[in-house]
Amino acid sequence: MQPILKVYGDRLSQPTRAVIIFCRVNRIDFEEVVVDLFKREHLSPEFKKINPMGQVPAIVDGRFRLFESHAILRYLATVFPGVPDHWYSADLFTRAKIEAILDWHHSNLRRGAATFVLNTVLAPSLGLPSSPEAAKEAEKLLFRSLRMIESMWLKGDSKFLLGNPQLSIADLSLVCEIMQLEVLGDSERDRILGPHEKICSWIQNVKKATGPHFEEAHELLFKVKARRAAKMGSDRSKDLKTASKL
Amino acid sequence: MQPILKVYGDRLSQPTRAVIIFCRVNRIDFEEVVVDLFKREHLSPEFKKINPMGQVPAIVDGRFRLFESHAILRYLATVFPGVPDHWYSADLFTRAKIEAILDWHHSNLRRGAATFVLNTVLAPSLGLPSSPEAAKEAEKLLFRSLRMIESMWLKGDSKFLLGNPQLSIADLSLVCEIMQLEVLGDSERDRILGPHEKICSWIQNVKKATGPHFEEAHELLFKVKARRAAKMGSDRSKDLKTASKL
Repeated sequence: MQPILKVYGDRLSQPTRAVIIFCRVNRIDFEEVVVDLFKREHLSPEFKKINPMGQVPAIVDGRFRLFESHAILRYLATVFPGVPDHWYSADLFTRAKIEAILDWHHSNLRRGAATFVLNTVLAPSLGLPSSPEAAKEAEKLLFRSLRMIESMWLKGDSKFLLGNPQLSIADLSLVCEIMQLEVLGDSERDRILGPHEKICSWIQNVKKATGPHFEEAHELLFKVKARRAAKMGSDRSKDLKTASKL
Repeated sequence: MQPILKVYGDRLSQPTRAVIIFCRVNRIDFEEVVVDLFKREHLSPEFKKINPMGQVPAIVDGRFRLFESHAILRYLATVFPGVPDHWYSADLFTRAKIEAILDWHHSNLRRGAATFVLNTVLAPSLGLPSSPEAAKEAEKLLFRSLRMIESMWLKGDSKFLLGNPQLSIADLSLVCEIMQLEVLGDSERDRILGPHEKICSWIQNVKKATGPHFEEAHELLFKVKARRAAKMGSDRSKDLKTASKL
């Protein structure tokens, strides 16, 4: 019997969700091993044996270990038979363009979005220091990145990146990144994504193409978002009560 | 006649040098088109036609345009016949490990090294604002990245990353990044690299494996370094003269 693929991750991590959705859509059998980031399990000696970098996601496929979500997606798309070509085209030119987007993602969309979320919502809720200056810089990079995606890769009425008729691992990775903005709450998300109509349609297209797995992988994120909204609401109503007593 | 490959870049950019060295070592015929970063030519309308992101390096191969150095290196290694397999192995497992290093590079070694150089030497010399806070954070990330490379990928007496007997595009890309530290001057470079013996031997191995093209591609960087050292020396001697008059 083939040993089952193990995916180590936390569904609150956007690259973990990308890997999970990819496996589900492509019917790749896997065991999900939860590495709870809030409990700092990614820094535990047990997990460091799987990935010494202490980052999720990571996979173990038989004796083979791998980390970095883009590398994992490329590997899964290549190694597992039956994954349709559009995910990571064998055509050299199409593939090179997908690679350029994946590389660009690291220092642009990811750096902008993840640093913004960290310095506005995540760090305070984890009791870590946050920097308004870093949040401001990250916001600029995030807006620039969204504009770039629209003008470079979602030209005309493209359904997916590069005008491709079906999605690739780049669509999945970038959309999962953008979905992380949900934790900011509806009004912040709308302020950022609202002016970007093409981005909004593209997210819907990726959702449709990967449903119901997309929604399922994002359930935890929406739970955290709801909890945060409830907490903020109760804080606000407490503030109002306090204010009314003053 | 096959149209010649055009490489747009500035040899002061570490990823540009990686692409140039790769072409030279593999006897890929190309025309080098200089995009002078100090003259801000990367932001010119002419260059934006080649790469709307305004980043170097970028290539034009016939009608095909591509940016992001890792994507370019993968493309060149795959498309040009006669590039030895070790650069970007066709073996799925070896390739996946190379991909993980390339992906890791963006948010770790590159982010650390490039942000440190920017906020200490580059920004002031370009008249741009620099942040001591950002430099401090970047230095931490740079040191952590160097330690990670040594403990993860240069175990034992590995000549190249992953214990491979010959170098890959990951070795070339990462070593070109580290070479950027030369502009900091000898003492700063030694402070950073000195404690990392394995990194130092690895740089030498990559130099040897790609010489004399490695040295040739780095000539401009060393000129800039010498100019900076001379300027700092003359500033210092001016200061001394001024001090002696006081």
